[in-house]
Amino acid sequence: MLKQIQGGVCAAKGFKASGVHCGIRKNKTKRDLALIYSEKKATAAAAYTQNLVKGAPLTVTKNNISDGYAHAVICNSGNANTCNANGIEIAEQTCKLVADALGISAKDVVVASTGVIGQPLDVTPIANGIPALVAGLSDENSTLACEGIMTTDTKLKEIAFEFTAGGKTCRIGGIAKGSGMIHPNMATMLVFVTTDCKISAAMLQKALSADILDSFNMISIDGDTSTNDMVSVLANGTADNEEIVSEGADYDAFCEALAAVTKYLCRMIASDGEGATKLLECKVDGGKDEKTAKTVAKSVICSSLLKAAMFGADANWGRVLCAIGYSGADVDVNKVDVSFRSAKGEILVCKDGAGVAFSEEKAKEILLESEIEILISLHDGAAVATAWGCDLTYDYVKINGDYRT
Amino acid sequence: MLKQIQGGVCAAKGFKASGVHCGIRKNKTKRDLALIYSEKKATAAAAYTQNLVKGAPLTVTKNNISDGYAHAVICNSGNANTCNANGIEIAEQTCKLVADALGISAKDVVVASTGVIGQPLDVTPIANGIPALVAGLSDENSTLACEGIMTTDTKLKEIAFEFTAGGKTCRIGGIAKGSGMIHPNMATMLVFVTTDCKISAAMLQKALSADILDSFNMISIDGDTSTNDMVSVLANGTADNEEIVSEGADYDAFCEALAAVTKYLCRMIASDGEGATKLLECKVDGGKDEKTAKTVAKSVICSSLLKAAMFGADANWGRVLCAIGYSGADVDVNKVDVSFRSAKGEILVCKDGAGVAFSEEKAKEILLESEIEILISLHDGAAVATAWGCDLTYDYVKINGDYRT
Repeated sequence: MLKQIQGGVCAAKGFKASGVHCGIRKNKTKRDLALIYSEKKATAAAAYTQNLVKGAPLTVTKNNISDGYAHAVICNSGNANTCNANGIEIAEQTCKLVADALGISAKDVVVASTGVIGQPLDVTPIANGIPALVAGLSDENSTLACEGIMTTDTKLKEIAFEFTAGGKTCRIGGIAKGSGMIHPNMATMLVFVTTDCKISAAMLQKALSADILDSFNMISIDGDTSTNDMVSVLANGTADNEEIVSEGADYDAFCEALAAVTKYLCRMIASDGEGATKLLECKVDGGKDEKTAKTVAKSVICSSLLKAAMFGADANWGRVLCAIGYSGADVDVNKVDVSFRSAKGEILVCKDGAGVAFSEEKAKEILLESEIEILISLHDGAAVATAWGCDLTYDYVKINGDYRT
Repeated sequence: MLKQIQGGVCAAKGFKASGVHCGIRKNKTKRDLALIYSEKKATAAAAYTQNLVKGAPLTVTKNNISDGYAHAVICNSGNANTCNANGIEIAEQTCKLVADALGISAKDVVVASTGVIGQPLDVTPIANGIPALVAGLSDENSTLACEGIMTTDTKLKEIAFEFTAGGKTCRIGGIAKGSGMIHPNMATMLVFVTTDCKISAAMLQKALSADILDSFNMISIDGDTSTNDMVSVLANGTADNEEIVSEGADYDAFCEALAAVTKYLCRMIASDGEGATKLLECKVDGGKDEKTAKTVAKSVICSSLLKAAMFGADANWGRVLCAIGYSGADVDVNKVDVSFRSAKGEILVCKDGAGVAFSEEKAKEILLESEIEILISLHDGAAVATAWGCDLTYDYVKINGDYRT
């Protein structure tokens, strides 16, 4: 039984957070350095971008948590620290600086960066900012850390839930940024999750690796896989439940809570996509297998033509069929049904792969809402999938075309 | 030795063309029906969309030219005749109507449609238009046929060349449309090529199938594979060269001429992409194999972020590296060089996978041109590839988001 609670990454017992402006970003009113600290060393798990070009911080983080433990997370915005000759060195220096200030090992720090690629990153502002960052640590400051990782984000993305494992009340919460930057370059996505649930590093990684297949890997803002994407979870065991070391009811309860956090953040990231005016949620059912359902959902959510149609509140279902057809999934297109749904109702627009008569007026009313569901039935099995995205708007072009002009 | 000549699809001897307004499109000043006729029955080859959802005309055409011969091509714009319950029937009726008017077999007609998906297509305007269409046939009317297949295209796309095979002068020419419609729905691409070269149906298909891998399959406007894409070639043998029935010098000469036509049309289609202000040409060299080079070129040309940056004339090379990194190609990103080139010069922006100091002013000057080359060296072999695309602009969103509002 899940219960939503306040506190973001500080909802879990024993976690503190902080966020400051240290000078990487020129605008002094924007925080650009965030810290999450666990009083007890925590088990840690992470997932990274599949891009062959990887931000230097990802390499350092992967190395640091290879033993399954972490004590703190530091993240800067304004510079991706990617494709820089000395990127690794800068990321390691950052870990050392924050570790020294906290009295922990530099090998127990998760480090992340988000911003322009290929711009040298000077460690000086980070070094100068760390004293205030550490001094600001509090279990009430999740929001400040969330601000510190935001770039062109327009909405704070934080959430927390309470759940029960081994008879103990546990908490899990997360913050996220995506998708844009002051100098937008990549739809970089960063997610930090904390929990006081006691769970082994192996089971934590297993839970995270499974979760992202249904959550973050099912989002697309613009089809461009960032070089700096990272999701990490720290579990400090403060809830004092019997440690989760294998599958079972407690592991399932943890996974359910983790999914509640990640799915919420997915929706927040998609709805706050660069230039977006609408959250699109593509729900596929009747797939012959999960891979088919996911491939279809992802293909539809990625279609530039459909995204532009949704911006225009145009029930252009032919673009949905088209995206299903080129998805590569093995689908009988003559069995496909498509409906659009929002708070204003639901309308069937395609049955058995062909158009049906529908009220354009009603369809327009449904599609003018800010959250749209695209419902696809494949009638070929029982597999389901959901993907999240947003509409393609003038502002996406503006944000990504004009920023250095 | 190739020589560019006038005449489009009528440059080859024995071909006539025509184009009229028959009433499928509401705007009476726009032609919506095109005809290409060969006085002699021609060998025929075609390539079709890979989309599982296929326009009904493609199915009918595939069936009609399965014997390797065709006599005429008819194409309407304004309606894709796709996802319609009676689409096949309408396409077959169209073939029958034009065949009767021309005194040829309905089984020798290539039929194509371009327009909105899922809208019933009434055969009446086509039937009414055919007499004038046939009456208008002339070897000077390639441009009228080209107009008849245009939708939101802003430029006529026609070209022709002279070449020599078996000591005889041969001619080859083509017309194309792409990418948009009056009611834009799919980046539908249609290409019709004619030649008076004598070549067997098998060798013609072989030449076309090989050619499209380097030409039309290397274009992307928006990543959405249309349901109605088709390229067809008719060869009527009027040049009276010894028939090309196997590989050799004549076949090579034909392939070179075919490539000259298709590559020209590729560039025209890409530069006339919906909303485009710039033609982008991504040239990759040093690939370890052709597949790698093509995958990289295509990934870069498809990146929404890079396309938006090119619209803004922003030398944002990090987006090029990012798109290489997620392309799926096996590339050593630490060996990659990137330059931008146009009529205003060339500038190196990335060397060995990291940024180099460059003049932003010079880069801006280069990128403000209307034809931009993105040059990528992988330093891993000798394979090369070229892909074509266009920038992502406000007008792309406008054309595809607003059209029914």
